[in-house]
Amino acid sequence: EEGEAAVSGLNGVNWKRFSYEDLDAPIIPSKAVCVGLNYRSHIEEMGEKLPEEPTLFLKPRTAVIGPNDSILLPPQSKRVDYEGELAVVIKDRTYWVSEEEAHKHVLGYTIANDVTARDLQSKDGQWTRAKSFDTFLPLGPWIETDVDPMNLRLRTLVNGQVRQEGNTADLIFDVFYLVSFVSKIMTLEAGDIILTGTPSGVGPLSAGDEVVVEIEGIGRLVNGVKPMEIVGNDR
Amino acid sequence: EEGEAAVSGLNGVNWKRFSYEDLDAPIIPSKAVCVGLNYRSHIEEMGEKLPEEPTLFLKPRTAVIGPNDSILLPPQSKRVDYEGELAVVIKDRTYWVSEEEAHKHVLGYTIANDVTARDLQSKDGQWTRAKSFDTFLPLGPWIETDVDPMNLRLRTLVNGQVRQEGNTADLIFDVFYLVSFVSKIMTLEAGDIILTGTPSGVGPLSAGDEVVVEIEGIGRLVNGVKPMEIVGNDR
Repeated sequence: EEGEAAVSGLNGVNWKRFSYEDLDAPIIPSKAVCVGLNYRSHIEEMGEKLPEEPTLFLKPRTAVIGPNDSILLPPQSKRVDYEGELAVVIKDRTYWVSEEEAHKHVLGYTIANDVTARDLQSKDGQWTRAKSFDTFLPLGPWIETDVDPMNLRLRTLVNGQVRQEGNTADLIFDVFYLVSFVSKIMTLEAGDIILTGTPSGVGPLSAGDEVVVEIEGIGRLVNGVKPMEIVGNDR
Repeated sequence: EEGEAAVSGLNGVNWKRFSYEDLDAPIIPSKAVCVGLNYRSHIEEMGEKLPEEPTLFLKPRTAVIGPNDSILLPPQSKRVDYEGELAVVIKDRTYWVSEEEAHKHVLGYTIANDVTARDLQSKDGQWTRAKSFDTFLPLGPWIETDVDPMNLRLRTLVNGQVRQEGNTADLIFDVFYLVSFVSKIMTLEAGDIILTGTPSGVGPLSAGDEVVVEIEGIGRLVNGVKPMEIVGNDR
């Protein structure tokens, strides 16, 4: 895929020809705030009750990878799942904003894959370890600034087969509710992202898979899957 | 309190005269990785079982305040607790390091207060909201580079009364185990911190309190407590 596009950034907009393979993650956020269990269908498949308030967790910025980068399967887990999600990108420092005013603090939207070691999520109770491995936050392919987030179809495909289908109209807590809710807990900074949750159909990834998250009006986030090779400070 | 001290930083060491009131947080980490339930005594008071592995969670960098800054009590919670903790400061980019080699990647140690909205922690199941409010991560007063972390007395005092007493010798997972464990999940970056857990004696803070966390060989982290005044983007 290639084309000519406005590559949006916090420091302005540049027009350039690009190929999909050239793209990095459009933002490395200072924080990635995530919402669990926000589509009715996913709550049912996880056997949970409808929540009164959003359930939050954080992913570290070191988990971010870009389009076409590979998700790496860590040796600690035997079950790593995709979770396709709409991500909100924050425009400016935002604290204690109302739902009605929240749109003024949104730069745009991108696509995220909230990759999750499902076995560790069950084992730990707290979700942080399961969701924080390096490469577990594919982001991109760009930030779309001109899209209505309230009614967007989302699909996740593995090796070309559709595994998740949802629509942001089915979010229990919508984008502007979430921006407001999170802003009343922690100051949001320019470039921070909020992941809005995943619809039903989550499932495992294997080495060699290609996972694609598509969101109407934004684009496609494509990532391969490989085993993690340990090349740490101990190598 | 005042004195002459080496004010350590990642870009070198400067000697200057200072008063305690001048100090800011010694580091704003790219991430703060925290460990729950790591002192036997605190696990017993929370009614939990001894863990096989550390339980991790993250606090956002926007929660950091310095010595003498005030902890702000948010309107969403009726019960905000102190948790005095030893914090490890990472020296350089560290990935998949062994317990034996971990000390090479530690810059030093500082004091942290893992402030927690206990009522929201119980309500949410996930701990992130309860621990992520602005001002909920007092850090300081400085980074001590020459201290053995394996046998340090820790005390927390509220209005001069001792509420927590512990010793890092009682950690289930010690400092170097934790650096290794976390580094095998997420790449640690220079200035990242790992909070090592809190001993028994956690309890509530009220407006007007002064909370002090003391760690032998490091110093004292002093913070006042005030109600949060809402001065957000909606003001």
